[in-house]
Amino acid sequence: MSSSRLLDEFNAGKPAALARVVSIVENHRDGFEEILGSLHPRTGRARRVGLTGPPGAGKSTITSLLVKRLRDAGLKVGVIAVDPTSPFTGGALLGDRVRMESVALDPGVFIRSMATRGSLGGLAAATREVADVLDAFGFDVLLIETVGVGQSELDVARTADSTLLVLVPESGDSIQTLKAGVMEVADIFVVNKADRPGADRLRNDVELMLGLRKGVSFGSVPAHHGVDFKRMNPARVARDAAAKPNPVVWTPPVLSAVATQEKGITEIVDALDRHFAYLEQSGKLRARRRERMRERVMDVVEQKVRGRLWKDTATMSWLELQLPSVEDGRATPFAIADQLLRQSAELVRGEEAK
Amino acid sequence: MSSSRLLDEFNAGKPAALARVVSIVENHRDGFEEILGSLHPRTGRARRVGLTGPPGAGKSTITSLLVKRLRDAGLKVGVIAVDPTSPFTGGALLGDRVRMESVALDPGVFIRSMATRGSLGGLAAATREVADVLDAFGFDVLLIETVGVGQSELDVARTADSTLLVLVPESGDSIQTLKAGVMEVADIFVVNKADRPGADRLRNDVELMLGLRKGVSFGSVPAHHGVDFKRMNPARVARDAAAKPNPVVWTPPVLSAVATQEKGITEIVDALDRHFAYLEQSGKLRARRRERMRERVMDVVEQKVRGRLWKDTATMSWLELQLPSVEDGRATPFAIADQLLRQSAELVRGEEAK
Repeated sequence: MSSSRLLDEFNAGKPAALARVVSIVENHRDGFEEILGSLHPRTGRARRVGLTGPPGAGKSTITSLLVKRLRDAGLKVGVIAVDPTSPFTGGALLGDRVRMESVALDPGVFIRSMATRGSLGGLAAATREVADVLDAFGFDVLLIETVGVGQSELDVARTADSTLLVLVPESGDSIQTLKAGVMEVADIFVVNKADRPGADRLRNDVELMLGLRKGVSFGSVPAHHGVDFKRMNPARVARDAAAKPNPVVWTPPVLSAVATQEKGITEIVDALDRHFAYLEQSGKLRARRRERMRERVMDVVEQKVRGRLWKDTATMSWLELQLPSVEDGRATPFAIADQLLRQSAELVRGEEAK
Repeated sequence: MSSSRLLDEFNAGKPAALARVVSIVENHRDGFEEILGSLHPRTGRARRVGLTGPPGAGKSTITSLLVKRLRDAGLKVGVIAVDPTSPFTGGALLGDRVRMESVALDPGVFIRSMATRGSLGGLAAATREVADVLDAFGFDVLLIETVGVGQSELDVARTADSTLLVLVPESGDSIQTLKAGVMEVADIFVVNKADRPGADRLRNDVELMLGLRKGVSFGSVPAHHGVDFKRMNPARVARDAAAKPNPVVWTPPVLSAVATQEKGITEIVDALDRHFAYLEQSGKLRARRRERMRERVMDVVEQKVRGRLWKDTATMSWLELQLPSVEDGRATPFAIADQLLRQSAELVRGEEAK
């Protein structure tokens, strides 16, 4: 199929075209830049929600329940799973997988598990690209699930508008097992499996870390404002929020949930809506999205440089010839790198490319 | 202190100079390139061992026991912890931390916990640089501990000569929670907490995944060849190994351990020695180290490009001016990236730099 025909079908909302475009983009096949470029004007409408936390915290269960609620509200949902332990990527228990599959049969839902990216890509960049495709296709909400441990995974979480951190009491030290920085990136905390021992302590620990006053428990977090789930529609959120007092500070709520019993999901949906309203009214949404765009362009620049240098046979052959002198200490990696860049400026400039 | 004075003290083996050099290199402070460049000819002697696995698998306990054995054998040991859950990075239980501290008081041991690296660095590159410093200082063995979940962490594991993957039975799905690719990267498997239920099944699962014949258990792995631990000295390993039949194929052994009772540590040390002998005799050590050098130079090139572009005020101001047009869809990230590279070729070439 020609690229323009594929794009026509994509624009007409054909699921097969969507799957093909995602594959082309994810694997950086020929023409992916043109495709992403032509989709670009139609991005920026979807709301991007990150879900992160340690393996086994129940992220996927919460994700699938959120999908259900969003679908009930008539919204189209894209799920991007960057978590190797997620049932979305085939990693977990059979029960979960079955639950996922019932979700997967709904044409208003698209689920994509991200494969590992090599050195030319980068996981956060790849996730952003796939998210852009789903955004352009017309999904209203994108749920991006990552395991909150690795550095790349933290970078992925940073690409979302709102980030949910899911914790569980049994890993009593679960806060500590998270990458430094994950706590800072979270907008909403969820203590899942909250019916198990240790849940109160975990909630206290989180609140302490958040610098909340001791003794302030979940109950004191601003309650449900009677906002229904339809608010997961960006336009309505903006309109409704405009009628309310302007929130200028966001205090991350620490919610409780028992996802396997569908408890606490309404509160999560609610907190997401409140957070989105806060982002819009405070001007942070604009700032976050500009930051994301800046990082996107910087990613593309770095990808292009890597592609132009490391896919160039002459450059790689030259480098290979230098390695013995680096190995025996006659040259340093820095000197060789400087020389490589001096002689490759035209290559980096990309005059030949396209 | 001047850079040359600092290097004199480093070369004289002063611990304070080592700590300062590591800090300068880890944070890419002024002069880090000159320092790494001047240390470069003295690198390549240390044996680099990676320890990876899920949080709670007992990597740090095994690391500290290995440190003890290596010290008993008169070897100097550097530990680089890239695992946020490691007691080396202050992340775990008090008991562990005390055990680590007794190790930390020994001047023949240097422990460094790697901080998170921003976008200009990269965790694997930073780990390689710190490892080079320890190597040049004269440490005989470097133990590099990473959590086997994230992509960056897997890249770190790839920088070692030998990689140990530590698994535990209780996370029955622990194999699945690992990043795809971690299984491939491991040279030696350790089933820790092997006295707990599920250990045999886990060992079977691993052996199945390794494509070993069913029924082949730990006992059938080539036994202790009477090699003592002193072999963790690269020169001796080479010499002793030369007298033995040439191993051309490496079958990753699946070992059992109960690290908290110091069980199975001798077998791990032994397997590490056998693996190192295999690497040397098969020529793989040379190949791995050349690969590592190639990646090192490529890392430096990418770091330089990022530094030259993203620390350049004019470039960043220009980029900022383009963002509105990218946001409203008049321009694509790809077009802006192309334009940026066209006009920044001289910057990338680095004529001004040094």
